[in-house]
Amino acid sequence: MAEENKSSLEPLAALCKRRGFIYHSSEIYGGIPGFWDYGPLGSEFKRNVKDAWWQFTVRGREDVAGLDATIIMHPKIWKASGHLDTFADPMTMCKECKKLMRADQIKDIYEEQKKKPQPKIAGADFFCPYCGGELTEPKPFNLMFKTIVGPIEDPSNVAYLRPETAQAIFAQFTNVLSTSRQQVPFGIAQMGKSFRNEVTPRNYTFRSREFEQMELEFFIRPDEAIEILYGHVVTLADNPDLDGEVQQDWGWEVWHKYWVEQRKKFLNAVGLPSERFVEYWQKPDELAHYARACVDIEYDFPFGRQELEGIAARSDFDLSQHQKHSGEPQSVFDDPLKQAAKKMDEQARAAFIEKVQKDWVSRGKDAEEAKKFCEDLFNGRYIPHVIEPSAGVDRLMLALLCEAYEEQKLTDDKGKEDIRTVLHFSPKVAPIKVAVFPLIKKDEATYKIARELFNKLRKKVNCFWDESGQIGRRYRRQDEAGTPWCITVDPQTVEDGTFTVRDRDSMQQERLTYEQFLVKMTEALEF
Amino acid sequence: MAEENKSSLEPLAALCKRRGFIYHSSEIYGGIPGFWDYGPLGSEFKRNVKDAWWQFTVRGREDVAGLDATIIMHPKIWKASGHLDTFADPMTMCKECKKLMRADQIKDIYEEQKKKPQPKIAGADFFCPYCGGELTEPKPFNLMFKTIVGPIEDPSNVAYLRPETAQAIFAQFTNVLSTSRQQVPFGIAQMGKSFRNEVTPRNYTFRSREFEQMELEFFIRPDEAIEILYGHVVTLADNPDLDGEVQQDWGWEVWHKYWVEQRKKFLNAVGLPSERFVEYWQKPDELAHYARACVDIEYDFPFGRQELEGIAARSDFDLSQHQKHSGEPQSVFDDPLKQAAKKMDEQARAAFIEKVQKDWVSRGKDAEEAKKFCEDLFNGRYIPHVIEPSAGVDRLMLALLCEAYEEQKLTDDKGKEDIRTVLHFSPKVAPIKVAVFPLIKKDEATYKIARELFNKLRKKVNCFWDESGQIGRRYRRQDEAGTPWCITVDPQTVEDGTFTVRDRDSMQQERLTYEQFLVKMTEALEF
Repeated sequence: MAEENKSSLEPLAALCKRRGFIYHSSEIYGGIPGFWDYGPLGSEFKRNVKDAWWQFTVRGREDVAGLDATIIMHPKIWKASGHLDTFADPMTMCKECKKLMRADQIKDIYEEQKKKPQPKIAGADFFCPYCGGELTEPKPFNLMFKTIVGPIEDPSNVAYLRPETAQAIFAQFTNVLSTSRQQVPFGIAQMGKSFRNEVTPRNYTFRSREFEQMELEFFIRPDEAIEILYGHVVTLADNPDLDGEVQQDWGWEVWHKYWVEQRKKFLNAVGLPSERFVEYWQKPDELAHYARACVDIEYDFPFGRQELEGIAARSDFDLSQHQKHSGEPQSVFDDPLKQAAKKMDEQARAAFIEKVQKDWVSRGKDAEEAKKFCEDLFNGRYIPHVIEPSAGVDRLMLALLCEAYEEQKLTDDKGKEDIRTVLHFSPKVAPIKVAVFPLIKKDEATYKIARELFNKLRKKVNCFWDESGQIGRRYRRQDEAGTPWCITVDPQTVEDGTFTVRDRDSMQQERLTYEQFLVKMTEALEF
Repeated sequence: MAEENKSSLEPLAALCKRRGFIYHSSEIYGGIPGFWDYGPLGSEFKRNVKDAWWQFTVRGREDVAGLDATIIMHPKIWKASGHLDTFADPMTMCKECKKLMRADQIKDIYEEQKKKPQPKIAGADFFCPYCGGELTEPKPFNLMFKTIVGPIEDPSNVAYLRPETAQAIFAQFTNVLSTSRQQVPFGIAQMGKSFRNEVTPRNYTFRSREFEQMELEFFIRPDEAIEILYGHVVTLADNPDLDGEVQQDWGWEVWHKYWVEQRKKFLNAVGLPSERFVEYWQKPDELAHYARACVDIEYDFPFGRQELEGIAARSDFDLSQHQKHSGEPQSVFDDPLKQAAKKMDEQARAAFIEKVQKDWVSRGKDAEEAKKFCEDLFNGRYIPHVIEPSAGVDRLMLALLCEAYEEQKLTDDKGKEDIRTVLHFSPKVAPIKVAVFPLIKKDEATYKIARELFNKLRKKVNCFWDESGQIGRRYRRQDEAGTPWCITVDPQTVEDGTFTVRDRDSMQQERLTYEQFLVKMTEALEF
């Protein structure tokens, strides 16, 4: 996005509406705040972003299995995960104008309005940014949408729309482990809708009430198990090769950093270069109590710097919680670990326990629990730790749209100025990959070849046919849709089988055969 | 599925659990009735079924645009569609054992139990099939899940989880029309989750509370517009060519039949031959009041013959309802129609109106309305009619699983008998397309070539690597997963680059080069 457009989403949002990327949900009924629909180009774009993630995260790896779980799950899952008790925003209401708002967003609202209303009531702590009235004390408001499952409206039948896809992965961990051929370290990935009843949804599609997530839970051995198995634990200080094959002796710290790097590679691959986002490592006091580390990948949206995705090292918190609340064991049996532990004598075991206890106590944990944990390890048993790369589909799409959007000033040979609106999408996520044009609609031979070419290509990728208007205008229509290549079939095609391929970004044309174009396209689309 | 297994889903369900196709949702918490999760193989299978539908219905056609709308929409949509008032099942309760059940399923429950309990109360009309107690009079129970949007629990903020994906298409009809380059006749397609709060979810994944749909609304001109444009309307009696290109002069009857044929082609393509399903044309008294025709495609599941999908000719009912309830016009402007109407003189118009009135009145409609409709047509305006092919992802998956499942009796050279469990999936929907095995794990040259081959193939399709156990056992594992091809790399590969490709169904092996295999696979996967 050119600098001058950075300050506002408006030109992009206008394009998104005009070209069928994004609409308000239920628009003919006045819309419904926090809900957005994807139109013909938007739904293709979204499919491509999700397919890219799935290929990169699941199909392209041997150590990740997929899952597709329900949105409504057993309500105890949200008790175990902590969402029922703590997944809330502080909500406040103006006693005068009755507006509801998030207490933690009041400062932002003041800034957006570029004014600071005078309080109407002297001595109050909070003032309404809209009317200056007195605000109520903030109260926690749980963000989960509630519903009733089954025909009886009874508190025992209350269920929730999932506020994240991750918990289903934990709930199905033992099933996946026992029915796939995976062993720790391995991951389970899921994409799908999540719902959060935001008090004040805002920033276009960035903070919606219904959105889509792409989450991976990558289960690893606790460092203590690595220690028993390999006699050492590789840490970042060892300068491990994160670009090569994954290694069995990596500790959690290395796995975490590995996934940060993987996620960055993915973002690069779908069109977000590393210099366009910020890697923010949370400080110790910002971390959740169970988390060892968390990295936010942030992007400078026109409305400010916001989190695109997060990569958290969540220890064994989630599976332990589910073990506690379900009563079902979530530990794994690790035979190589048991065999390695067998080789430790009494003394080595005692020393090991002592070392672990010291470490645990230094991190505020219980010495007795540490001992129990070590004894389980000696038997080859532990609850896996987890690294969680968690991304939002919609906010990634929005970042890619912001990144791709450009209003380009062009000057032709005669000095005439013109504006070209173009979406510089990566071919991997572009909704239309190729547009095919017959140069002259009425030339039967050209037309026939163009149609044949179009029919061949659309068996492979999403294509668009356009036979109306000047070629220049057809190019411009595709520029706005972000189509990387436009093929024009002309009389020369009839003679030698070559056609012109016009590149969206450079606007250069080259003559290629079908086979040459196929190679070019395949290379650009494969991961 | 072999005949002896037809009567029961049990062996299939056991395989689905064991191999990670389907799990109970929230299983570690005892499950939640009517909710099912797809595991590693199931989620790949589901992606393939959906991708096939999208390719067949959207990307492979120029006259269909995609949409991806929210699950929670403005509640007025469900008032307009009729769901709020009439989307209900008759529910009854046993006054003694307090069991709730669908009144229309009581006969089935009796049959399942193979007993007819004696009524405990003389003279009652209904008896509980469980305890023989008296049942309450059936009351309508609305099947839409309710929730509250926003922080205020107030009836004005009640919203619903969509019970079908179709209504979002109607609600976004005008947006798609004005932002895509489509003109009537054209379609809008959507896939996604829908929710129905079934009183008694049953039959495995067939009738779930959360499920996925694939729906197309194909908008066509009213027959009267065709009449003005072409002077005739093609009907089925004209014996139109439904296999060729679509024609502009087709009436609704032909369009409906065309989509029935298209859907059958799709089912054939994903692995359901026409002789395996039943095409049921609803009788006039079974049709909804606005429907002109409806075909159910039914499949003989082990639990009985059930609807797989439906293709309905719904007239202009849906868009008219949304026009009425939203106040936003849903008619289109059709310039060729206006131009054609211009050529009709006063007399021709009067004759046309008279003819239409006669037809409408014979179908119980209003003569004045018919006149108004004709006058709008003369100005090139009408509300499009719609053909709706509507399919369930989960029930199609279940049918394909039933169809694919076989326990095959094999006898080897020595007369030893064995059972091979195999899923004969179409390659297009098989979760894993190719498995790659090194014949001898410890032979470095073979192993290296096998890995290179695997890495090349998995950039294209979902692959599986297996290096453990005898080749025969590796084949069997893939048979259960439905993998169409197993490639074994052996010492000969090192010499001449060929490898063995073992066909899942015939169990025959042939030696192919990489290029030969690629051609074979691509042909089998393309639509």
